[in-house]
Amino acid sequence: MIDLRRTYAESLDANDELAVFRSRFLIADPDRIYMDGNSLGRLPQAAASRASQVVMDEWGEGLIGGWNAGWYEAPRRVGDAIGALIGAGPGQVIVTDSTSVNLFKLVAASLALRPERHRIITDSLNFPSDLYILQGAAELLGRGHTVVSIGMQAGGEVPDLGDLSAAVDSDTAIVVLSHAAYKSAYLYHMESVTRLAHERGALVVWDLSHSVGVVPIELDRWEVDFAVGCTYKYLNGGPGAPAFLYVSTPLQERARSPIWGWFGRDSPFAFDLRYEPAPGAARFLAGTPPILSLLVMEAALEPTIEAGTSRLRRKSVAQTEYLIALADELLAPLGVAVASPRESERRGSHVSLRHPEGYRVAQALIDEMKVIPDFREPDLLRFGCAPLYTTYADIWEAIDRTRRVIGERMFERYSPVRRGVT
Amino acid sequence: MIDLRRTYAESLDANDELAVFRSRFLIADPDRIYMDGNSLGRLPQAAASRASQVVMDEWGEGLIGGWNAGWYEAPRRVGDAIGALIGAGPGQVIVTDSTSVNLFKLVAASLALRPERHRIITDSLNFPSDLYILQGAAELLGRGHTVVSIGMQAGGEVPDLGDLSAAVDSDTAIVVLSHAAYKSAYLYHMESVTRLAHERGALVVWDLSHSVGVVPIELDRWEVDFAVGCTYKYLNGGPGAPAFLYVSTPLQERARSPIWGWFGRDSPFAFDLRYEPAPGAARFLAGTPPILSLLVMEAALEPTIEAGTSRLRRKSVAQTEYLIALADELLAPLGVAVASPRESERRGSHVSLRHPEGYRVAQALIDEMKVIPDFREPDLLRFGCAPLYTTYADIWEAIDRTRRVIGERMFERYSPVRRGVT
Repeated sequence: MIDLRRTYAESLDANDELAVFRSRFLIADPDRIYMDGNSLGRLPQAAASRASQVVMDEWGEGLIGGWNAGWYEAPRRVGDAIGALIGAGPGQVIVTDSTSVNLFKLVAASLALRPERHRIITDSLNFPSDLYILQGAAELLGRGHTVVSIGMQAGGEVPDLGDLSAAVDSDTAIVVLSHAAYKSAYLYHMESVTRLAHERGALVVWDLSHSVGVVPIELDRWEVDFAVGCTYKYLNGGPGAPAFLYVSTPLQERARSPIWGWFGRDSPFAFDLRYEPAPGAARFLAGTPPILSLLVMEAALEPTIEAGTSRLRRKSVAQTEYLIALADELLAPLGVAVASPRESERRGSHVSLRHPEGYRVAQALIDEMKVIPDFREPDLLRFGCAPLYTTYADIWEAIDRTRRVIGERMFERYSPVRRGVT
Repeated sequence: MIDLRRTYAESLDANDELAVFRSRFLIADPDRIYMDGNSLGRLPQAAASRASQVVMDEWGEGLIGGWNAGWYEAPRRVGDAIGALIGAGPGQVIVTDSTSVNLFKLVAASLALRPERHRIITDSLNFPSDLYILQGAAELLGRGHTVVSIGMQAGGEVPDLGDLSAAVDSDTAIVVLSHAAYKSAYLYHMESVTRLAHERGALVVWDLSHSVGVVPIELDRWEVDFAVGCTYKYLNGGPGAPAFLYVSTPLQERARSPIWGWFGRDSPFAFDLRYEPAPGAARFLAGTPPILSLLVMEAALEPTIEAGTSRLRRKSVAQTEYLIALADELLAPLGVAVASPRESERRGSHVSLRHPEGYRVAQALIDEMKVIPDFREPDLLRFGCAPLYTTYADIWEAIDRTRRVIGERMFERYSPVRRGVT
């Protein structure tokens, strides 16, 4: 049985090889327990300095000259930096637009590469915006594509892999899945699912939003075709920081973006009247990228790059295991169930806990207990472990304070009526 | 004849009712003559303060709570603020994505509203990225749309309005034009062109990138259907700041975005698996907007809103007329021709000057003379008058220094081989 004392958490922190990275972030109030780094990462100090530099020096003083002093290359340069975190060699990753817009581009591109096929396979674990993009693309193209969601195992948070295998057939154009599920953190075995799709002649598009930076990913080695991902969760890029997009080298010559913007053209500032796609993944750039958000995000990557995905994954697994063990001991008796996979290999870096009063518990934690989890309908509390700055003591406090909220029925003071937007 | 002395420019500045606004911008070196505000506006002091506030307070301390403290509403709130500058009542303008991506969305939406028609009318004055978007949308949809560019008058910088009238026929779905042309600043009469399109049953999509903030625009009154525009030129929003998009109230119920992202849905944080478009223009939102770039841009709007478009236009016209008069007197004898319309009603806020060695002249101005114009192929120097901060003395200096570069043949020291990206 696990040691339930806070001193044990403190000893884990004392022995944590990554503990030093916490000082690289702004921690305004150490007693405020932030367990939502899976939704919006904390502010890295380097990002704050960079914001001021970009605004005052590069824009304020450099003016239009910024385009010749690093801005123009930024989508490719930052793309390569993220590529190094996900096993993608240079020239395959770019940063631009949002995850949804990038997914739209890749779905259109990949469907065009399989013109005789009509099925788009996904699952109900996928991020809703991804599902919307698929539905919208099918309707826009009007060529009879259908979006097929595979079945779930009982409980609804783990896919039925047999059903997935049966669903990917000779009429399947693409398989579009989130590597880590946003609700339960269920983690697909990307390599084997990619192989399965390829065996049936389909292409894959992976959404890495909830795994990038905390789970080792080898896009090139696993022969992934396309991927997208978000930079403001574990990569700490800042709210709405631009997303990334991966196009594997073998597909780059044939894949075409449906949005022919000037940044996706060679020599955009030559202002030719006819579009020719740029070589490589850069053809998936569209309009002018949001430079301020982009360069701040670039600086925010530093701690992730220095810590390295392997070490981050090791700590992440240890932390989610610790959180689950505490929840089993302290919260299960109060009616809380672990909704995330118990097998660490199949779990990302957050843990979802189910409680019938989950919404009100979350409100009480935020308003009275200085704990910030997030809530996902209908009854899930999500606790994210961001190994760059989450401490074991944070986890102990989060579970202990949740125990008090439920045990002392503090949540009963809160309305079940949803408020706010997140 | 115009008074050619610098003291005359100084007297114009002394009598300028908007002169006070210059102090609202960072001017690091007053002797550096920035004539490229039509490409990237200067840094407003308010934007610099706001950047620090968003990064440190809202992200760093507020963390995920930012979404409940103003971020979520920002695309609508800032959209309404821009709407007030372009004659659009509330609920019709949103800020999101880039101009190119927004144009893509509106082109797909408007073509779907005219399913029996196949022609897309535009012109070669349009910004190349806009032309690419049209070509790409036609190819993506695969429904036989053709992009038709109307003819130009001799010289190539002014459209043949007779040809425009002839081109808009009963098979025309949409007319897509830039209000002010990026090269020559030619300014369409938006109201009459919109009426012409409507008389033939076509819809209009206007790109306001080069006119917003310096030319009065009345989208509602002129019964415009759709519009897009950029915020980093005369609106000073910062490099790559997100763009805006207008959908007129009468079309909002029927118009559908082709990119079904979660922010274009009602209650995105409820995470429903099926997409339903949000009411109003907000359905054209897609993924998470770049909050940092967006909120900095919001603060940057302040001086434009305070000065008001009428006063800005009055000064802008006076400044471009002054610049043209100086060019006629001082540069025409050196082989420079005015490439922008001479009729002020048909001209935006920049002036293009043609010289066979335009590229090398621009290099010499930038490298040796502390004047920053920009250059557009094949032989155009663009001088932007940004009435919020450009002084008459700036204009005098810009023309006088250009006179020296050409008169003393300083440009001959520069290679005609293009360097850099802008």
